[in-house]
Amino acid sequence: MPEKYSIEQIDDALTELNRELEDGQKWQIKEDKLCKTFKFKSFIRAFGWMSQIAIWAEKLNHHPEWFNVYNKVEIELTTHDVGGISELDFKLATKMELFS
Amino acid sequence: MPEKYSIEQIDDALTELNRELEDGQKWQIKEDKLCKTFKFKSFIRAFGWMSQIAIWAEKLNHHPEWFNVYNKVEIELTTHDVGGISELDFKLATKMELFS
Repeated sequence: MPEKYSIEQIDDALTELNRELEDGQKWQIKEDKLCKTFKFKSFIRAFGWMSQIAIWAEKLNHHPEWFNVYNKVEIELTTHDVGGISELDFKLATKMELFS
Repeated sequence: MPEKYSIEQIDDALTELNRELEDGQKWQIKEDKLCKTFKFKSFIRAFGWMSQIAIWAEKLNHHPEWFNVYNKVEIELTTHDVGGISELDFKLATKMELFS
């Protein structure tokens, strides 16, 4: 079972996650979820990226809430088991950045 | 360019689409969109199905609005080019049923 992150832990992890991301590309906390909208050049690229992340999600046994329309993918990450954000959400977000 | 379906055309196509589906499995019109929530046995099955549909969507050049969390996939279909529902939405919905 992962540990629920405190506000301080979330702040630290968010700073690290966003360190090399430009404004407008940064992850945000919204309603206790770790959120970002990714945009790609096409549906093929968007869904291709989702396919890579789907395999990582299953491997981590931690799955995103995600909405896709055409080249856009809206991501919301939370850890239901702990009722908040945990290390798992940041792990999955890091994979999302690595493969985007 | 597809033709925007009239209310009568939508009714007819919806009846045909839902003909062999059980209650609780039927497609519905909500806010001018053709909608259904699919549930699968696992994330792997849900995303596997999405992958099949993604290829059909690209082939039809008609893409869904879809939200996934774990084994659940919420679908909303509309044809932006005509500002409503068209034959394309029913074509894609039919593929979704065929592969589910």
